[in-house]
Amino acid sequence: MTKPQPHFGDMPPEEFRRHGYAIVDWIADYFERIEEFPVLSQIEPDSLRNNLPRVAPEQGEDFGEVLKDMDRLILPAVTHWNHPNFHGLFSTSTSSVGVFGEMFTAAFDMKAMLWRTSPASTELEDVVLDWLRQMMSLPDHFEGIIYDTASVSTMHAIAAARERANLNIREQGMSGRDDLPLLRVYCSEHVHSSIDKACITLGLGTGSLRKIACNERFEMIPEELADAIEEDVEAGFHPICVIPTIGTTSTSSVDPVDAVADICEKYGIWLHVDAAYAGSAAIVPELQHYFKGCERADSIVTNPHKWLFTPFDLSVLYCRDLSVMKQAFSLVAEYLKTSDENTVKNGMDYGIQLGRRFRALKLWFVIRYFGRDGLTARIREHCRLAQLFASWVEDSPDFELMAPVPFALVCFRANPRVDDSHVSSPPVSKGRLSDEEVDTLNERTMNEINASGEAYLSHTKLNGKFTLRLSVGSIRVEQRHLEKVWKLLNESVART
Amino acid sequence: MTKPQPHFGDMPPEEFRRHGYAIVDWIADYFERIEEFPVLSQIEPDSLRNNLPRVAPEQGEDFGEVLKDMDRLILPAVTHWNHPNFHGLFSTSTSSVGVFGEMFTAAFDMKAMLWRTSPASTELEDVVLDWLRQMMSLPDHFEGIIYDTASVSTMHAIAAARERANLNIREQGMSGRDDLPLLRVYCSEHVHSSIDKACITLGLGTGSLRKIACNERFEMIPEELADAIEEDVEAGFHPICVIPTIGTTSTSSVDPVDAVADICEKYGIWLHVDAAYAGSAAIVPELQHYFKGCERADSIVTNPHKWLFTPFDLSVLYCRDLSVMKQAFSLVAEYLKTSDENTVKNGMDYGIQLGRRFRALKLWFVIRYFGRDGLTARIREHCRLAQLFASWVEDSPDFELMAPVPFALVCFRANPRVDDSHVSSPPVSKGRLSDEEVDTLNERTMNEINASGEAYLSHTKLNGKFTLRLSVGSIRVEQRHLEKVWKLLNESVART
Repeated sequence: MTKPQPHFGDMPPEEFRRHGYAIVDWIADYFERIEEFPVLSQIEPDSLRNNLPRVAPEQGEDFGEVLKDMDRLILPAVTHWNHPNFHGLFSTSTSSVGVFGEMFTAAFDMKAMLWRTSPASTELEDVVLDWLRQMMSLPDHFEGIIYDTASVSTMHAIAAARERANLNIREQGMSGRDDLPLLRVYCSEHVHSSIDKACITLGLGTGSLRKIACNERFEMIPEELADAIEEDVEAGFHPICVIPTIGTTSTSSVDPVDAVADICEKYGIWLHVDAAYAGSAAIVPELQHYFKGCERADSIVTNPHKWLFTPFDLSVLYCRDLSVMKQAFSLVAEYLKTSDENTVKNGMDYGIQLGRRFRALKLWFVIRYFGRDGLTARIREHCRLAQLFASWVEDSPDFELMAPVPFALVCFRANPRVDDSHVSSPPVSKGRLSDEEVDTLNERTMNEINASGEAYLSHTKLNGKFTLRLSVGSIRVEQRHLEKVWKLLNESVART
Repeated sequence: MTKPQPHFGDMPPEEFRRHGYAIVDWIADYFERIEEFPVLSQIEPDSLRNNLPRVAPEQGEDFGEVLKDMDRLILPAVTHWNHPNFHGLFSTSTSSVGVFGEMFTAAFDMKAMLWRTSPASTELEDVVLDWLRQMMSLPDHFEGIIYDTASVSTMHAIAAARERANLNIREQGMSGRDDLPLLRVYCSEHVHSSIDKACITLGLGTGSLRKIACNERFEMIPEELADAIEEDVEAGFHPICVIPTIGTTSTSSVDPVDAVADICEKYGIWLHVDAAYAGSAAIVPELQHYFKGCERADSIVTNPHKWLFTPFDLSVLYCRDLSVMKQAFSLVAEYLKTSDENTVKNGMDYGIQLGRRFRALKLWFVIRYFGRDGLTARIREHCRLAQLFASWVEDSPDFELMAPVPFALVCFRANPRVDDSHVSSPPVSKGRLSDEEVDTLNERTMNEINASGEAYLSHTKLNGKFTLRLSVGSIRVEQRHLEKVWKLLNESVART
């Protein structure tokens, strides 16, 4: 259905109000009904694509028609990250006030490149990042900047490390030079793939990334790091950055930042802490001890869009000396010059992106609406639920815990006791399945639960073993949701 | 004012509805009243910061209090990009349906890393980018991918060019190698600063970027490009990428893509077209001729968030062979492995960012609501208004045009005839101000108008001359808004 529209200009205001209310209602209903939906979308690949016209409409359509398609076409193709039984990857969810923040941000449509093009965004960003810094008990010499994702934050951190190495890479680059030693970046073998991608992007190559072995708790072994650096320095390489992680993606393990900081200080290497997932937990007093050593870092990334109920995207990079980032990236074309450039902060000076969304607003809403206490209580509850789930695993004869649970991620697997009569291949030990059978069982269990739409789990491999990951992080998660998953798991395993 | 909240969970639904309606009304009023606001925020630096608490609230606040602060604190600190008299930089604005798109996107809060974590986003992105591709008359071998900004799109394009050079940079990197020639990227001297920043980020360095001279119309001279490449090849350098621009930032000039494509073909160099600003104009049949040669490009970037009424951020990179991007960036950690990875498209494979917002939705809304005809009509009208303004400039004895006007950006300056008695220093020619005086006059005129809040202009320098830039691009702009600017300019100059 096409409709008559004004020839130019935007939607008339009364129409904006009418559809706007309808969308608010739609979202309110969606949040209320979220548990009725399958967590993972049940559509087959290409089924949305095949239901959409191949060609754009010539004439504008009534927006009411578009809204109908939200129910008819889009909703079935949505994987519901806000569902309280989304336990895959890291369980992240928005809050209602986060949605409000994005409404204003879209309406203002500011590009916070220059202070003058968006004073509100520039100044609120400073203020709200300083609030968060205090909440995380980071020292006051840290200054923050908002990027879109942790991948981009970390890429900027490594770029700053490269800049501080004083090798004139900003101007001369790295190609066609015979005076440049191999630059090295260090992280644990459990690091997030974004570190590898950052090294690729920055022209360092995956080969520049040296992955340090971990102990049985999946934590970087500082002695191994020290040895690696010593070896590299002797070989004439140039270590520029070490990246310990607080809350690795596979297991949420915690690298020993304080011990790593000792080593970085000794060699003058940039220390970047990847706390993209667990950083939010630093606001909980009894979890503070995991962050020991962060106060000595050159930079630290944390993602409020992961575990602080802020809609995607909002990643924060705190730097001991943000001016290094400016040195690395500032480049002011004539058309961006302003008379106030020496007296105000222009966001564009701190990274590759020129335009920057007004992301601080939604985080300001979140912190004000929930308060420090409300946010702390929610993260604390998630950790309690994860510990509770881990205790069920430990108490069960049919499941086993695969990693410690410092935060709200449980790594575990089914490893049921079986009647010998049911075992097809020779069991490794009496009454147990073989390693391969255990892997197969767990993968099948996961796929079964995911396909049912009742919950979403993901996996990793630990010491070669297929391991289930259950992440607790939704703002809507309650104990009953974990009880449901536990029941599903036990039923699935019992069917084997 | 603190308020009792549920101890866990999100805002209650009835509260979401109440505040949601209020925000819809707020935005509707904002759009209706937009012309009452000064275009550039009138606040002094730090005045917002100084009005905000230094410390986050312990207890959650009533969201009504936060909304009051939107009027009291945030609004005065907003520079109104949606104001029809925002003519600075590139005039960009959202449409109402763009705001609707961001509401849903925030509510779903999907991360479109894997197909399965967001089938809707993955498939709608393909469909809507194919719609846009057809609208822009790009050939059907182009496949698109959405990034946040043109800076990031272009960085990925150059990274793909680097990958296609087959120098094993992804693994080996560029440092510590003596087998790697200097890699070269070419663009015109009027290129956007994002190209320089991409070269910095990618480790190529600003020195790798060779800027080719332009003709008097500010267009890259292809003979100069051919000579530069020939010279570099003879010197043993390795040209990897040429970046002509359609719609340069300073003047919106159009590099001769077709002639550049001949050169790229001859040397086997990646051709990346920067149409971040002007790409949207390719949907207008009579402007199609500016895009001749784009069909031969390896990649082309266009930003619907610039001139297609889509809220920031949404940048599109079309690639002749998107698999090169996958080759450059795909890296699948165990925790991201899925059984369907060979049969579906996983967005994370095409760039540095792992999580990706559901950006396609707002563009789908925009194209459906306005239709191809409605979008074409609006862009055509902007070009008509710019031409009209340019004609006023040309007809005036006191102003002069400084560059051709292919799209909707006018570069001009005041250069009034003056009484000799009023000239302080010896005029260059009888009845005219000196070059320096003309520069000063134009800068003062711009600052005066910007400070008044009546309109926002920005500037550039062309052949060393201070040049005013007037961009026409707001969805709300009408002829009366340009008449107002013209009046302000003439009044300001008359006062000199």
